[in-house]
Amino acid sequence: MAYKSDIEIAQEAKMLHIKEVAAKLGLSEEDIELYGDYKAKIKLETYQRLMEKEESAKLILTTAINPTPAGEGKSTTTVGLGQALNKIGKNTAIALREPSLGPCMGIKGGAAGGGYSQVVPMEDINLHFTGDIHAIGIAHNLLSATIDNHIKQGNDLNIDPTKIAFKRVVDMNDRALREVVVGLGGTANGQPRQDGYMITVASEVMAILCLAEGIMDLKERLGEIVVAYSYDGEKVRARDLKVAGAMAALLKDAIKPNLVQTLENTPAFIHGGPFANIAHGCNSIMATKLALKTSDYVVTEAGFGADLGAEKFFNIKCRFAGLAPDAVVVVATARALKLHGGVNKNNLDKEDLGALAAGLENLEKHIENVKKFGVPMVVAINEFPTDTEAELELIRERCEELGVEVALSQVWAKGGDGGIDLAEKVLDAIEKPSEFKLLYDVETSIEDKITKIATEVYGADKVNFTSQAKKDIAKLVKDGFDNMPICMAKTPASLSDDPSLKGRPRGFEVTVRKINVSAGAGFLVALTGAVMTMPGLPKRPSAENIDIDEAGKITGLF
Amino acid sequence: MAYKSDIEIAQEAKMLHIKEVAAKLGLSEEDIELYGDYKAKIKLETYQRLMEKEESAKLILTTAINPTPAGEGKSTTTVGLGQALNKIGKNTAIALREPSLGPCMGIKGGAAGGGYSQVVPMEDINLHFTGDIHAIGIAHNLLSATIDNHIKQGNDLNIDPTKIAFKRVVDMNDRALREVVVGLGGTANGQPRQDGYMITVASEVMAILCLAEGIMDLKERLGEIVVAYSYDGEKVRARDLKVAGAMAALLKDAIKPNLVQTLENTPAFIHGGPFANIAHGCNSIMATKLALKTSDYVVTEAGFGADLGAEKFFNIKCRFAGLAPDAVVVVATARALKLHGGVNKNNLDKEDLGALAAGLENLEKHIENVKKFGVPMVVAINEFPTDTEAELELIRERCEELGVEVALSQVWAKGGDGGIDLAEKVLDAIEKPSEFKLLYDVETSIEDKITKIATEVYGADKVNFTSQAKKDIAKLVKDGFDNMPICMAKTPASLSDDPSLKGRPRGFEVTVRKINVSAGAGFLVALTGAVMTMPGLPKRPSAENIDIDEAGKITGLF
Repeated sequence: MAYKSDIEIAQEAKMLHIKEVAAKLGLSEEDIELYGDYKAKIKLETYQRLMEKEESAKLILTTAINPTPAGEGKSTTTVGLGQALNKIGKNTAIALREPSLGPCMGIKGGAAGGGYSQVVPMEDINLHFTGDIHAIGIAHNLLSATIDNHIKQGNDLNIDPTKIAFKRVVDMNDRALREVVVGLGGTANGQPRQDGYMITVASEVMAILCLAEGIMDLKERLGEIVVAYSYDGEKVRARDLKVAGAMAALLKDAIKPNLVQTLENTPAFIHGGPFANIAHGCNSIMATKLALKTSDYVVTEAGFGADLGAEKFFNIKCRFAGLAPDAVVVVATARALKLHGGVNKNNLDKEDLGALAAGLENLEKHIENVKKFGVPMVVAINEFPTDTEAELELIRERCEELGVEVALSQVWAKGGDGGIDLAEKVLDAIEKPSEFKLLYDVETSIEDKITKIATEVYGADKVNFTSQAKKDIAKLVKDGFDNMPICMAKTPASLSDDPSLKGRPRGFEVTVRKINVSAGAGFLVALTGAVMTMPGLPKRPSAENIDIDEAGKITGLF
Repeated sequence: MAYKSDIEIAQEAKMLHIKEVAAKLGLSEEDIELYGDYKAKIKLETYQRLMEKEESAKLILTTAINPTPAGEGKSTTTVGLGQALNKIGKNTAIALREPSLGPCMGIKGGAAGGGYSQVVPMEDINLHFTGDIHAIGIAHNLLSATIDNHIKQGNDLNIDPTKIAFKRVVDMNDRALREVVVGLGGTANGQPRQDGYMITVASEVMAILCLAEGIMDLKERLGEIVVAYSYDGEKVRARDLKVAGAMAALLKDAIKPNLVQTLENTPAFIHGGPFANIAHGCNSIMATKLALKTSDYVVTEAGFGADLGAEKFFNIKCRFAGLAPDAVVVVATARALKLHGGVNKNNLDKEDLGALAAGLENLEKHIENVKKFGVPMVVAINEFPTDTEAELELIRERCEELGVEVALSQVWAKGGDGGIDLAEKVLDAIEKPSEFKLLYDVETSIEDKITKIATEVYGADKVNFTSQAKKDIAKLVKDGFDNMPICMAKTPASLSDDPSLKGRPRGFEVTVRKINVSAGAGFLVALTGAVMTMPGLPKRPSAENIDIDEAGKITGLF
């Protein structure tokens, strides 16, 4: 059977005019700003008006086992579940992150779902969309330019050029920019110093946009960004450089949530896409809240597996936003579980119940973890054509033993119709009492918060803090930054900090080598292992396949 | 008298919904893509349909004397003249460049006209607008990333890392990026090499977008870009790196002309903004042609003074697009002419007929030049409150001696009403026969083309080619790039290549130090003196004044 590519399916979509999608949410033409016929932003006045409204919508988080090269289909499941809930008469909206353009030129698959569970127009969403990420990049780079300019123009703030904590950004996979020297060429060009680039979605400005609730909050948080330290060790903030207002002005449209639709015309808020390692990996609070005010059910997702994505969704996003999820969907595939059980990537098409049984330990740990947060859950098995009945049965059995409902999801192949069983089980779960609780109190020490996450969520025996990490903690305490939630930067490939340890590692220790503050976002970033904030292009970048015809139709984008 | 700031005036504008502005041009809702209520893009289908249409619209170019710190008001005059023509019953559209965001953070005044002759919504136009410049920047940086990636992944094309002709870009004034070293950090990050950044509008991709007529033309031109030379001296093009299709895909919306309006609801196509030194400094051909197909009169402009802007408008844009202008407006101010006559910048408020008489030589030379191109012209004196009647009379007299009509323009203070006299004189000029001719044939040698521009337009005695320039010419001839028009990169501040020579320099020589090819744009760039392609921020960047309130209203942007 020849499958259609995602872009082929997407281009055949029967999209509604976005005004009609808005109407499903009770929003009028006055509430939205059109970006063409199929994209819109929600006006700030509308957002503010809706926030006054009472609401009793249910919030469903989609998360997953630790990701593998086999693909789990978390976004696909999120989209498909939203479509399925609408199919069975439940007014549902979805809330997703907006994808970064850079990786589309590299090796990455679509970030807008897949098969018959996609958000559309997919080319727009995957490329410039409504320009949010470009706006974030330029607001960020304004601050960068201002730092070097300040130093050149007399350095009144006494900034130590070797202690600048704020790199530049570009929305491109460009490894040559990971480590650069800027300011060369003599006095006219400023002071030479070492710098580096991150991909734009790794910017703290992105994290801030996703946590801010309104322009004043945004501006306040932008001002808090710690960009550097002075020769005296004093922190220098964006506010000290007097550009928080201009940065916020550059984000005047980016802060407004975007509305699009799925292939089945389910309303989709796609807004904000912070990195899931050095940031919290969830779409904007404003998009989630808007979805909750305009529908009865909201399906949203968080980056990577539940150890990182769900943990941060709960402990960072829900904490800041005052959100309480009503149900969690944990996505797994037989193929990915077999990889966790030790099967080689090239042998996934073969039934292997032994490997599957071993790999299921990964899913079990995530189920245990979600239980710790007190939220009812359903496991969704994202079906692949190669799955055997015996494999699916084994997953079902194991979930049953753990007292967790499991549903086979066929949303990739069948759209909403393939997610009816999942949708019904999610509705059942929502009926159960949710006793959502956070894992830690921000008032506890930095070491205790990190240790709690590592031992209780990852299953580590203990945490080692390097001497650098200890120095960082002392400085953070001195600067008054200790009472913040923790944003763990850890490999997504394993529950541990070693990407090679699949399944459910035991008896391991986690090493924290550095702790940075994202003072505007309001969290501390604990770095374990090497964290990549600037991807590279492969030998044959997918950009080579992308083309466009005379009428503007794009091909080769996934 | 306290003047309102440009942004205050702009925010009081009574804008029509952009659908109504489109309707003035005979365009329906089906022809446009909305970007909010006051911005739209024209669909490609509409463009293609309109190009089939016969048209007899008149094309008016606004140009100016050599710019001075006193400001001449060329964009203001363009906008005001368009408004005035509409006031007297002529269906008129204007076509302008879109401004670069970066300089708005530095010291630059608005690039969307001024006073009561502005295009609106000015905050949007001056900041991200419809995202065109961001799209250009990322298409450019995709190509940059691909170059370094190609070298790292085996360098099949044998690219010499010391002969990469394609810098990176960012839309920010950031002098620390003028000269950088990229690729540091070891093997994983690639090959270290010297690189640099330009501001995005200096990108050849911008010049290409402005000269392309449709997506296939765009893609073809992108493929032609010479990015580097191999160790064997062979040119390496974007096409060889296989990313022209992806770059064109990234520009799928950017290529569509943007429609906005003036304060008096005159339709304004604002599209493309190439640098006026290393590129040709005119809005896109597509925008100009669209304006010509949808109205009876089109007012457009070109960057800098007539020595650079008009010369390139004629010899590059009109040549490529097959356009023939019907009239030229040369903008001057008494203040700027006094500066050209030797008055100090701080003494401009005082009447000084002697200095004015001396400075008028600058205007005279531009009048002579426009005559060489065979297009009827009108001089517009952009009035300032400090102008005296004797000064204005002196300018009138001198123009009369030269047989050129002159009009006092009060469009800054009065909008269209202040440009009625100018509009009527322009209509009279259009009635005169235009015998538009280009200055040179592209088939003549590179040296001859440059010499013709320098001697006939600038008034130089001769041109000196440095040994580097001679080497460049030999290489260009060998590579088959000699039969292209010339894009002069010269200081705009003087008719000569020495910015300190005001008025009408005589007895000078022009030195060409280097010649680059913009093979995708289709012209050769002859560099005289130092050319700045990355501005810096001043000690107090204007970004410090920019702010935004809770409702999203921006202040301090000019």
